Amino acid sequence: MALQMFDKERTLQMRQKLIGQSCRLFFSHEPLKIVKARGQYLYDENGTQYLDCISNVQHVGHCHPSITKAATAQMELLNANSRFLHDNIVQYAERLANTLPQKLCVFYFVNSGSEANDLALRLARQYTQNKDVVVLNHAYHGHLTSLIDISPYKFWKLEGQKEWVHVAPLPDTYRGLYREGHPNPGQAYADTVKNLIDEVQNRGRKISCFFVESLPSVGGHIILPPGYFPKVAEYIRAAGGVFVADEIQTGFGRVGSHFWAFQLQGEDFCPDIVTMGKPMGNGHPLACVVTTKEIAGTFTANGVEYFNTFGGNPVSCAIGLAVLDVIEKEDLRANAVRVGSQLKKLLKQLQAKHTIIGDVGVGLFLGFELVKDRVALTPATEEAGLLKERHICLSTDGPWANVIKFKPPMCFSMEDAERVTEQIGFILQEIEDMVSKKKS
Amino acid sequence: MALQMFDKERTLQMRQKLIGQSCRLFFSHEPLKIVKARGQYLYDENGTQYLDCISNVQHVGHCHPSITKAATAQMELLNANSRFLHDNIVQYAERLANTLPQKLCVFYFVNSGSEANDLALRLARQYTQNKDVVVLNHAYHGHLTSLIDISPYKFWKLEGQKEWVHVAPLPDTYRGLYREGHPNPGQAYADTVKNLIDEVQNRGRKISCFFVESLPSVGGHIILPPGYFPKVAEYIRAAGGVFVADEIQTGFGRVGSHFWAFQLQGEDFCPDIVTMGKPMGNGHPLACVVTTKEIAGTFTANGVEYFNTFGGNPVSCAIGLAVLDVIEKEDLRANAVRVGSQLKKLLKQLQAKHTIIGDVGVGLFLGFELVKDRVALTPATEEAGLLKERHICLSTDGPWANVIKFKPPMCFSMEDAERVTEQIGFILQEIEDMVSKKKS
Repeated sequence: MALQMFDKERTLQMRQKLIGQSCRLFFSHEPLKIVKARGQYLYDENGTQYLDCISNVQHVGHCHPSITKAATAQMELLNANSRFLHDNIVQYAERLANTLPQKLCVFYFVNSGSEANDLALRLARQYTQNKDVVVLNHAYHGHLTSLIDISPYKFWKLEGQKEWVHVAPLPDTYRGLYREGHPNPGQAYADTVKNLIDEVQNRGRKISCFFVESLPSVGGHIILPPGYFPKVAEYIRAAGGVFVADEIQTGFGRVGSHFWAFQLQGEDFCPDIVTMGKPMGNGHPLACVVTTKEIAGTFTANGVEYFNTFGGNPVSCAIGLAVLDVIEKEDLRANAVRVGSQLKKLLKQLQAKHTIIGDVGVGLFLGFELVKDRVALTPATEEAGLLKERHICLSTDGPWANVIKFKPPMCFSMEDAERVTEQIGFILQEIEDMVSKKKS
Repeated sequence: MALQMFDKERTLQMRQKLIGQSCRLFFSHEPLKIVKARGQYLYDENGTQYLDCISNVQHVGHCHPSITKAATAQMELLNANSRFLHDNIVQYAERLANTLPQKLCVFYFVNSGSEANDLALRLARQYTQNKDVVVLNHAYHGHLTSLIDISPYKFWKLEGQKEWVHVAPLPDTYRGLYREGHPNPGQAYADTVKNLIDEVQNRGRKISCFFVESLPSVGGHIILPPGYFPKVAEYIRAAGGVFVADEIQTGFGRVGSHFWAFQLQGEDFCPDIVTMGKPMGNGHPLACVVTTKEIAGTFTANGVEYFNTFGGNPVSCAIGLAVLDVIEKEDLRANAVRVGSQLKKLLKQLQAKHTIIGDVGVGLFLGFELVKDRVALTPATEEAGLLKERHICLSTDGPWANVIKFKPPMCFSMEDAERVTEQIGFILQEIEDMVSKKKS
């Protein structure tokens, strides 16, 4: 297979003409053309290798041969819809159930995290018969109409806040309302949700759910204070609502110590609905909602079929099963713990040498925040561009776009961790030299 | 690869336990377990072959080797997201553009017809700055919150009609307001939309779009009267709205004579937005929205990124390109014309012999409607079950569930057409015999 059909300039021209410009490119001023990938490495049209710290979707590594093999075998055999009985969907559901608290045992397979979150919203509303939703500030839950409504990250830039959406403060112990010195930030932040619920109920409104990422991502890779989820769940259930954990970015062992990030909040804590997506199919469009018998039962009782054309088809499920197999066989959770800790350690060493403010994250869901006043307005975006020149793909996030994110394929190695921190070190040094030169 | 892991009984038990019951099975009392498929044939766990008249998604035939080959080759090479430049997405957009009126030239790739329709709604609203939507009665546009709102087929059973949704009569010349004898049913039905628009505007509301399937499907496989779309488009544009054609069921040559079903309404007619899905990836989750430069431009101008994690990835686009290749190489549109006409002819012969009311449809998008008072309340559902016993998979639709639908893989043959009509003939005879026995 030829690696390219058009030269890069021509591809870019066609892209600008034929694809909606709202679909943005990484490094938009000088985008990369990537024609090949393997594991944690991307290759451009000239064969130049890039270390990929971005692709959380290609969870077990780009183009993993086990995944391709499973997909091909099933594509050769059958890819009908889920209105026929098939073993893959039930086997996959059973395997996923084994990773979850027993209560979470009824599955709906869909094609994207956005579809999953929309369905979660429908389930919560049908079960509670309430409409209102409590979300965290800066949250992003997907690109669909219903999800932009519950995503402050988007709705502030678009139609604004709907009357049925209520925004609680981000429980950020780094720069939020209650910080590291606070005796019990988990309780304190949960109380902000409690106060919001009270205020909403006083206005006669009724809450269907608290909808939250298990680790807020575009909020800046925030680690939640202990005790926060169990307390919020208690308050939201007392108000007649349910707890929805969005694990689309954080599930499938990315945090290392646990299979699901909500489990960081304690073994006893169990959401009422969990959504999963991105890493689930290693790039294949596959996502899922899991909930309790009671919630699923109410959804069935409305008497209306839920049909998702591609959701849960034999090929998607074969791929999902193969991803679970690879996570286990290659012990990628242990790798996330090991490499994640090393990366954290190396970043801390950089922190001692340069004026990086803080490192955040857990497992291979890491970020580090740059000092705002050292580098101008969008510092991390600039850094990301500079790292690209050194053949490393990183991206930035957070309300001030100054958090450099690590969410690489889970096969990221110790050597990769050293390579990326070394290069970041060089760049920080260059910038500091430049700044001091300007001053002198 | 073993064809089954669990016996059928066990699969069914697991399915009932693990998968939301809102996800229904075909022939729910005695569902089929399908383990293998090829072309237009399905095979159950015992190796019994079924003729598939249902699977419009497996457009070029189940497990077509060209599609598997293209998917595998690309999966081995790269499956990154569309934030990197890649040839497949632009090449695919160009190929699709060649099938469409020149005006429709900006593409957004997504994972399902529902995602496509939701985005179409966002585009229409952003462009017009209006909110209200006009739809046809009985329409179904997808399973998402925003789409249930514009699907009378669903919302009547759920939350009811929103104040911003306006339902126009189904332009059904068979049993609608204006029938075959009418001198100009296209104009007459378009006027019903015009009157609705006037009424809505008189109440101070503003219309974003007319949202319509190019051939209403769950409405009962309706063929629209000539002149209807151009007239409605004129009225809707005059009211400040745009025309959205939902081609999710009807596109990619299913109607035979044209690549898109909206083209049945004349060469000059061009919608402002077209959505496509089901057959696009032959079972792979792939869908798309195409629109004009102007509408895409307004969406870009809002300054907010549209990112669809899996949409337009190199594997999806490789599969999409392979589907287009097979449609051309195997001349499946000509096959749809030829076999569709034969099927229609054979059904007409049955009609002469038995008391079937009417046949409807075009190409391989055919339905035939059964007399309501001959067979009890859900006659066609019963027929479908009886046909299953004779190893033919058919399904039913329409507001009264009495339309038997043909939407088989496009490789459906003349022999298949004969086999299915022969079996239908036997069953109609059996039922008639039974009815006359009861009477005597």
